[in-house]
Amino acid sequence: MNSNAQIELSIANAIEHTLNSTLNRVSTADAPPLLASAMHYAVFPGGARIRPRLSLAVAFACGQDDPGVACAAAGAIELLHCASLVHDDLPCFDDAPTRRGIASVHRAFGERLAVLTGDALIVLAFESLLAGTVTRPERLAPLVGIIARSVGMPNGIAAGQAWESESLISLSKYQQAKTGALFSAATMAGAAAAGHRFEPWRLLGERLGEAYQVADDICDMAGNAEELGKPVGRDAALGRPSAARELGLNGAIARLDLLVGGALGSIPDCPGAEELSSLIRQEAEGLLPKGLARQAA
Amino acid sequence: MNSNAQIELSIANAIEHTLNSTLNRVSTADAPPLLASAMHYAVFPGGARIRPRLSLAVAFACGQDDPGVACAAAGAIELLHCASLVHDDLPCFDDAPTRRGIASVHRAFGERLAVLTGDALIVLAFESLLAGTVTRPERLAPLVGIIARSVGMPNGIAAGQAWESESLISLSKYQQAKTGALFSAATMAGAAAAGHRFEPWRLLGERLGEAYQVADDICDMAGNAEELGKPVGRDAALGRPSAARELGLNGAIARLDLLVGGALGSIPDCPGAEELSSLIRQEAEGLLPKGLARQAA
Repeated sequence: MNSNAQIELSIANAIEHTLNSTLNRVSTADAPPLLASAMHYAVFPGGARIRPRLSLAVAFACGQDDPGVACAAAGAIELLHCASLVHDDLPCFDDAPTRRGIASVHRAFGERLAVLTGDALIVLAFESLLAGTVTRPERLAPLVGIIARSVGMPNGIAAGQAWESESLISLSKYQQAKTGALFSAATMAGAAAAGHRFEPWRLLGERLGEAYQVADDICDMAGNAEELGKPVGRDAALGRPSAARELGLNGAIARLDLLVGGALGSIPDCPGAEELSSLIRQEAEGLLPKGLARQAA
Repeated sequence: MNSNAQIELSIANAIEHTLNSTLNRVSTADAPPLLASAMHYAVFPGGARIRPRLSLAVAFACGQDDPGVACAAAGAIELLHCASLVHDDLPCFDDAPTRRGIASVHRAFGERLAVLTGDALIVLAFESLLAGTVTRPERLAPLVGIIARSVGMPNGIAAGQAWESESLISLSKYQQAKTGALFSAATMAGAAAAGHRFEPWRLLGERLGEAYQVADDICDMAGNAEELGKPVGRDAALGRPSAARELGLNGAIARLDLLVGGALGSIPDCPGAEELSSLIRQEAEGLLPKGLARQAA
């Protein structure tokens, strides 16, 4: 196993372990059992865990000195991502019947518990930052700030989803808020969790977030529902903005390449810059399903 | 104006001012306008603001040394209360057409924006704790902990609402989580914001929370919708547990008196214990609308 694969594996294990123990901590004997199950269902089995893996990779690259803090930050980001998916799937939004190849939370547990699952995961994200920073209390404030801004108003995920209710949509604000913000939070929180200045890490997250959004638009237009584990063609059906519809398939794939190149060029100086660059390159190759990647080559 | 009335007035003004500036901070020119309006609509005009007034009154009683911290804590608690009302009014929960005498958020702005309003208010609550503790960074952690536990799993508001989806309801856990938890958070956060030990303040909050719940049940059974500014008879219609249905009207009123007495007896030693006691007594008198209070006397 090469060193990249080892880092990838230890990152993946650390994330699942963190999420598991965070959820176990609140699934106590006196918790309402259905909500506890629905929260677990919303988080496991995970998707690609791309945001927390990015966050931990940045913390590693910065030479993180306290894995507990870095894991807590990465875990909080994934909890918030899962919360946004649960609410985004609700009947009043996308009314998605499936997510990650299985019934969406509201289909499996009902709408009430789906609303509450999102709410409780948001709260748990902040609570888990607190639990994860007991050894480095001075890192709680920057992490709360970075992460709260990435999910709230005026520029976080909730703002991004709210742009869908406006008649005049600012496309770049919409995409930056709905997808980019949590990616920037992932890179910045990784740095902040390692005790580094976090602002220089914003651009990397922004570019990766945009690359991910373009890849997602491509998959939605030209992907295969079974391979992706979620319905396709939703952007067109819901009239949502899409880079693939705007630029055409080949144009969108070219744009994706450009963004990944820009991301690699914006990695700040840090002890593990080379490994991080190689991880991101590898990650980017997995953004499109094999069939589409071949088509692009 | 006596000293009680002066404290009450300065507390009320401080709360409105805090909530206003917190919401203004995120209602920037680049925010999605409808979500910004819906968040404002969910918070203003307020109800009785009973939780943040309690929190600030405790901070005053503890001889608070930094009003900014105390106001931030009180404001965060009110934002979370408003978020819970917005989600609780949704069609999949109570489907309430009105709240505080005007259309509920989902009736006025649609279901999507109502879900997002709740989400964004939850996030804003934590962000506002951060902003409010820059002068006392060591108070952020206890406040995040107290407040997160009161709204999340396993014992906070979300857990309380989730008990409504269980076939076997634990009545005391349900009421403690759905109502009591945020009252305990109010008293404990008030003490923590003043730099005091907060655990001794839990019991006061629990008893006041239970008193408030009993008063609410009484209003729902025997109150007047116009006077209350919200529909009545919902507990019976929705089959929800109710102290008034369980104990009868007079029994419930007797229980309320007992709880208020117990609350007064559990105020911890502090410089302003006497003023706090007198404020709580006055507050308790306002828990039932005039008609019902006369009936009780």
